[in-house]
Amino acid sequence: MANLDGFSDTLSGIVGTGQLLVGTDIPVEYARDEALEVQAQQPGWLVRPDDTEQVAAVIRAANEHGVPVTARGSGSGLSAGARPEPGGLVLSFERMNAILELDTENHVAVVQPGVTLGELEERTAEVGLVYPVYPGELGGSLGGNVNTNAGGMRAVRYGVTRQHVLGLQAVLGTGEVIRSGGKPVKVSSGYDLTQLIIGSEGTLAVVTEATVKLQPRLTRNATVLAPFADLDQVMHAVPRLLSSGVAPHILEYIDALTMGAITYTAELTLGIPDTVRDAAQAYLVVGLENREEDRLQGDIELVGELLGTLGAIEVYVPDGTNAHKLIEAREKAFWSAKAAGAHDIVDIVVPRAALPEFLAKARELAAAGGSGVVGCGHAGDGNVHLAVFQQDPRLRSALLRDMFAVAMTLGGAISGEHGLGTTKTPYFLELEDPTKIALMSRIKQAFDPRNILNPSVILGSPESDPR
Amino acid sequence: MANLDGFSDTLSGIVGTGQLLVGTDIPVEYARDEALEVQAQQPGWLVRPDDTEQVAAVIRAANEHGVPVTARGSGSGLSAGARPEPGGLVLSFERMNAILELDTENHVAVVQPGVTLGELEERTAEVGLVYPVYPGELGGSLGGNVNTNAGGMRAVRYGVTRQHVLGLQAVLGTGEVIRSGGKPVKVSSGYDLTQLIIGSEGTLAVVTEATVKLQPRLTRNATVLAPFADLDQVMHAVPRLLSSGVAPHILEYIDALTMGAITYTAELTLGIPDTVRDAAQAYLVVGLENREEDRLQGDIELVGELLGTLGAIEVYVPDGTNAHKLIEAREKAFWSAKAAGAHDIVDIVVPRAALPEFLAKARELAAAGGSGVVGCGHAGDGNVHLAVFQQDPRLRSALLRDMFAVAMTLGGAISGEHGLGTTKTPYFLELEDPTKIALMSRIKQAFDPRNILNPSVILGSPESDPR
Repeated sequence: MANLDGFSDTLSGIVGTGQLLVGTDIPVEYARDEALEVQAQQPGWLVRPDDTEQVAAVIRAANEHGVPVTARGSGSGLSAGARPEPGGLVLSFERMNAILELDTENHVAVVQPGVTLGELEERTAEVGLVYPVYPGELGGSLGGNVNTNAGGMRAVRYGVTRQHVLGLQAVLGTGEVIRSGGKPVKVSSGYDLTQLIIGSEGTLAVVTEATVKLQPRLTRNATVLAPFADLDQVMHAVPRLLSSGVAPHILEYIDALTMGAITYTAELTLGIPDTVRDAAQAYLVVGLENREEDRLQGDIELVGELLGTLGAIEVYVPDGTNAHKLIEAREKAFWSAKAAGAHDIVDIVVPRAALPEFLAKARELAAAGGSGVVGCGHAGDGNVHLAVFQQDPRLRSALLRDMFAVAMTLGGAISGEHGLGTTKTPYFLELEDPTKIALMSRIKQAFDPRNILNPSVILGSPESDPR
Repeated sequence: MANLDGFSDTLSGIVGTGQLLVGTDIPVEYARDEALEVQAQQPGWLVRPDDTEQVAAVIRAANEHGVPVTARGSGSGLSAGARPEPGGLVLSFERMNAILELDTENHVAVVQPGVTLGELEERTAEVGLVYPVYPGELGGSLGGNVNTNAGGMRAVRYGVTRQHVLGLQAVLGTGEVIRSGGKPVKVSSGYDLTQLIIGSEGTLAVVTEATVKLQPRLTRNATVLAPFADLDQVMHAVPRLLSSGVAPHILEYIDALTMGAITYTAELTLGIPDTVRDAAQAYLVVGLENREEDRLQGDIELVGELLGTLGAIEVYVPDGTNAHKLIEAREKAFWSAKAAGAHDIVDIVVPRAALPEFLAKARELAAAGGSGVVGCGHAGDGNVHLAVFQQDPRLRSALLRDMFAVAMTLGGAISGEHGLGTTKTPYFLELEDPTKIALMSRIKQAFDPRNILNPSVILGSPESDPR
């Protein structure tokens, strides 16, 4: 460890004494995020900068002193990507939470990283626009969304964070400030640093501003719910539904157990008769939106007809209130799983047609080790959210490893939208092609030569393996 | 220059003697692309590999011998990005031109880099799908499209190449082969090497396979043409049109001179009376497509009404044949400009609301130096295609530099979709933030430590400045 004399003084000189907390003065919520079964890790310093200049000065000082830096948005991550390093520095963006510009001519917003999705949703609604990426947690910060390349339910139509961030301001590990991209929707002038930084989980640069693309807000929407005998039929229906051109913005599957849990938690009554419920092993939820009511009705009809021919046991169109409750309950599936005692949540992604095969194998692996996996997921994207029930950390870790390996063999990846964080990084380092790991390490070196930015994440050293 | 003894033998051992040409045996078309006013540059070697293994072996050998490598698709680039280095090696993908897979369950295609947009268009049409990126030149290769992050007219609705490439196989400057991404539409597991390679113009890695996203093909389409008194009104109309939610897939402006040129070249009669033509300084072309005829008609009506209230002098809906001819003529604007004697074509991008300001300044700069700039562009994207008329290379270069500087000051970039190539790289190096140039150089180093991949492009050395 480098010489830390005077580091605290330097920090308070930059952000002011009121915005620096040291050691045990730092509240425990800064020591973790929402990842399950992960021990909190007390940081050495917490700073709450006010602007990019302060962020740059803090990182320059940390780089000089060799102090690891973890950027923190609202702490709603699920992979412990915002868990500090022991004796490290937490850079909290809670005070950099302004929507700097809402540009209705270019249809973009310029935001600071601490802005939450909820605030952006509210402000864009006022001008008839929308930022359509919707990871479900409205308390999540835009900075965190950029760092994890957050996805969510609407990705099947609108894409993920990556497709909606046009430009960034960011601070490298050296403290240098860059701007990449901007308001134009297309650029072909040098390497796309914006795209490289998105999803890099705070390991390449610390994002201090993002320019995001907005689009017209569609005001008519409806939800179609279809129980199926099994998941194979659901997944067979998905490409056929999409081929119709109907373009749903939500296309979720929910397994029978998870449906039970979320409807119970949400006190949701969908009026599904017992006979149907008993026969249904999987549900498909289709969200539709349009600018015109008659087109929406036409789409509902088309989807209903199609699902009928594709084996749905029944097709329901819940009324506005229940539809809203259902989507909200699905969004809160993580909390239902947590309440039910789940020990981990994974967000593995595979080519969507491989979902049934993946899930069959995952269940086999779980059963063999006495574990349980249940869940739901983005059927249109091949992205599952599995709650893993296995108290024994070693058995759980072995199951996770095997599930990740199966997914990768099927052409998938460890994480579709939560990021690797500190919890999934060890599996990534074990399972990913060493040539790519070496290349990524060289890229990391290009941005952060002293390896101070979130060093346990993505390319964490073997010593930081928490397993 | 390194020791080149035996290099030719090594190459013919890899690709076979029939697929290697040396020195003056290499036809002149391999010495350039379609960039205007750029001198052909005879390469030392031309190889036509058959598979990724051969590509990797060739690059390993080139790396060993320090021979620069330029990847070549169909040679339709407009920035001389495929112009070989003097005494360098051209890696032509003309034999790696297979569509390896057309996956109708996952809605993706896996293609070799030599596949043309025309072939992909034909094959996807057979299964009711479409690769919606449409740079206009159907002879362009997918490999070239990936390298330049090609855009085109449909980007306003569907985005550019970057949004449609899910995975790549690529060979680094060391000859190492990597696979990044794949069929899933979202991944958050390590740095996105796919996105970094897209648009890197063959300087980081040579792409040997691409997995691209397809979508349902919409069969109903129409074109609306609206003359306006000036470009300000066109650009004022654009965000209002988009806010309606009508989602045009084409939104082009064409200035009066260019309209004259392309309608003349295409022998196109649009039935626009002289009085209207005389009053029109700018045209807006709106392309609409839908899966249902009545929705298409509804959209045409809405667009017509809106444009009327937004100042259009008149609104025309050409019949199918003329609409097709108009779009085709717009696509071929480059050839019209070339035929008219243009000395360069630029594809500057700015935030779309800044287009009128940019064009006014560009015309001022041109007039001051006795040059001419006319053109058309993607009004929805802020991306202009200006034909530059100025015979004197020094005056032309000064004008280009000043236009690029103005665009960057307005928050734009030198190239929206053609790439920097060898022609725009010197301006980029002069005008871009040195911190970013240094960072990009370190990234380049991570992929290509001996700097053999297209070394004059993006980060070309000052000696390679052709100005």
